[in-house]
Amino acid sequence: MRIVAIHERTIPLAMAARNASIGFAGMTASALAVHTDARRNGKPLIGLAFDSIGRYGHGGLLRERFIPRLLAAAPDAYDDGNGGIDPRRAWTVAMMDEKPGGHGERSGAVGLIDAALWDLAAKSSDQPLWKRLAPDREDAAIEVYASGGHYRASHDVEALRDEIRRAMAAGHRRFKIKIGGAALADDRRRTEAVLAALEPGMTLAVDGNGTFDRATALHYAEALSGYPLAWLEEPVPPLDFELHREIAEQSAVPIATGENLFSADDARNLLRYGGLRRDRDFLQFDISLSYGIVEYERILECLEAFGWRRERCAPHAGHLFAMQAVAGLELGLAETTTDAQGLFGAVTSGVAVLDGRARLPDAAGTGFEASPVYRQIFDGLVN
Amino acid sequence: MRIVAIHERTIPLAMAARNASIGFAGMTASALAVHTDARRNGKPLIGLAFDSIGRYGHGGLLRERFIPRLLAAAPDAYDDGNGGIDPRRAWTVAMMDEKPGGHGERSGAVGLIDAALWDLAAKSSDQPLWKRLAPDREDAAIEVYASGGHYRASHDVEALRDEIRRAMAAGHRRFKIKIGGAALADDRRRTEAVLAALEPGMTLAVDGNGTFDRATALHYAEALSGYPLAWLEEPVPPLDFELHREIAEQSAVPIATGENLFSADDARNLLRYGGLRRDRDFLQFDISLSYGIVEYERILECLEAFGWRRERCAPHAGHLFAMQAVAGLELGLAETTTDAQGLFGAVTSGVAVLDGRARLPDAAGTGFEASPVYRQIFDGLVN
Repeated sequence: MRIVAIHERTIPLAMAARNASIGFAGMTASALAVHTDARRNGKPLIGLAFDSIGRYGHGGLLRERFIPRLLAAAPDAYDDGNGGIDPRRAWTVAMMDEKPGGHGERSGAVGLIDAALWDLAAKSSDQPLWKRLAPDREDAAIEVYASGGHYRASHDVEALRDEIRRAMAAGHRRFKIKIGGAALADDRRRTEAVLAALEPGMTLAVDGNGTFDRATALHYAEALSGYPLAWLEEPVPPLDFELHREIAEQSAVPIATGENLFSADDARNLLRYGGLRRDRDFLQFDISLSYGIVEYERILECLEAFGWRRERCAPHAGHLFAMQAVAGLELGLAETTTDAQGLFGAVTSGVAVLDGRARLPDAAGTGFEASPVYRQIFDGLVN
Repeated sequence: MRIVAIHERTIPLAMAARNASIGFAGMTASALAVHTDARRNGKPLIGLAFDSIGRYGHGGLLRERFIPRLLAAAPDAYDDGNGGIDPRRAWTVAMMDEKPGGHGERSGAVGLIDAALWDLAAKSSDQPLWKRLAPDREDAAIEVYASGGHYRASHDVEALRDEIRRAMAAGHRRFKIKIGGAALADDRRRTEAVLAALEPGMTLAVDGNGTFDRATALHYAEALSGYPLAWLEEPVPPLDFELHREIAEQSAVPIATGENLFSADDARNLLRYGGLRRDRDFLQFDISLSYGIVEYERILECLEAFGWRRERCAPHAGHLFAMQAVAGLELGLAETTTDAQGLFGAVTSGVAVLDGRARLPDAAGTGFEASPVYRQIFDGLVN
């Protein structure tokens, strides 16, 4: 199989949302389509990818380096020996003449190519991606949580409560809201308001988005220790492993972190130095933003070497693609959003959630074609 | 002062060179010009920057995020209260709505803007950049070394010897060549050939470009311990701090590293965990690729907190801009190249080197205007 063209475009995700770290008004994401010379079921075989969120689209890097390398490569540089494309070999082609280190941006561009090639590989074998990754797995259901609870300029607590109730009505049992974007007293009020709205067995996590300094992080960890929180997410800057270790030593609250580390190199350092606890903490490396499944498999090897179970993994964002990977790589938990209105949330809005579990679509590949926003994302790239 | 336009373009640096990590045939670099509404000495005041080398140009990211943010900002978001532009305030504008972590690519795009704004600030006060950074410093001379010794397909050792002799004739006394791109026996031959050509007091360093695994790195460190090497550079992958620690524990040879870490976050982790020795090792963070001088000042604060002297800093590449920063920030050593033919090397070819010391030009700013390749780099951006 030969890659004949790769089309990409940048899609605005303009959202009024704000967390403790950034505003999302100018946020973008890339959509990508890898066209091949193959056909399947009477149609051209095309691999699709749509970005994760929070680090902007990757159009410039894709056009400058990664797409040209793949288009310039001879097909036998990436073929799988069986008439298909091997995402692992194609990954090596895309990363040719790239120096080690510096994992950010580039990792998201390559992650899009990786995601499209896994979509393609799954379609080539007429399987959903999760089944392509885990042939022995029978069950397409995964645990999910609904993420949201951003700050609003007015009626913040009422709107927050409404948001959580809507997510509950949509079948969710696990929720996450922001902290750190307001005074601690406000964050307490928000936390208590949501906890009061939960039904038995439902859980709440809170997310500081990596902005607290040492004193604030320790103060928050102490102040929140009285609430039954599922986890405290990114209490401190993502690369301050020493501070992670301190928080983990001083607080029993589970910590979740890793969404702003984008490689096996960085994941290994978190596990080596971060003092995280294998019995309770969560690892949230974003698969698409971290060079895709090919690199994530290296991250999982690293986890294993450090005695971590992959059930502790709850990848950041990543919509359908991440959900497929959670099922296919036997990870613990997938993130979805409470915001089904926005484009990013709408990608998975067609996936039924029941009692906190999502059942992945049966269609071949990642499942974008069945998404209500398929045309909006991929029009112009696939035809 | 108002930024009225920012022009950039990508310049091919096509070189036949290869190190242990990558080939440079497709290497590119960005040139950038920040236009203002101010004039100085009868001419429009324009700030110039030219990329460091090894991580490709940053045109896509500049156009997507960093240039638009600066152009959209009100001048009072970046003014210095004195009619000029404050590079530190402008840095904050450029990094607005950027999440923490993920330091790579973005760090190079922002570094270009930073470099152009420092050039502008120095021109605004009619000073060379080093003097703008260090008003009390009288002397414009800095220690430099000549980097080269890439592998060639034929007559490798003869060509290597000629290259070093040419650099000697150009006034250099410190040299660096590649290792790890050939068998150890070949690397020994190359090392011995250069050492035999050196005059008393001249020094040689070797550079593995971060590709050795643990066993190879330990083997090389042992095998090279008999030579009087100035340093062993990047013996291991840049983010494997534990392996740095092991090498430093087991070998007395000075280690130089850091060129593939691009932030104060990552520099701090190297100092915390890498086991480097303050009395002999070198820190090579690339100023332009690491968000520029504004972030480098944070790196220097971090060094100080860990008891390191800034004389241990020998920034990677970066040509005139890095040389100005070495003088202006009182760092130890600047890197130049043995390859004065290539565009990158030609940027500094007008700077006289005598007895291993370079004397920076007296012109205001970074000094690009006096470079023999000024037109080649900036034509179309400045007029």
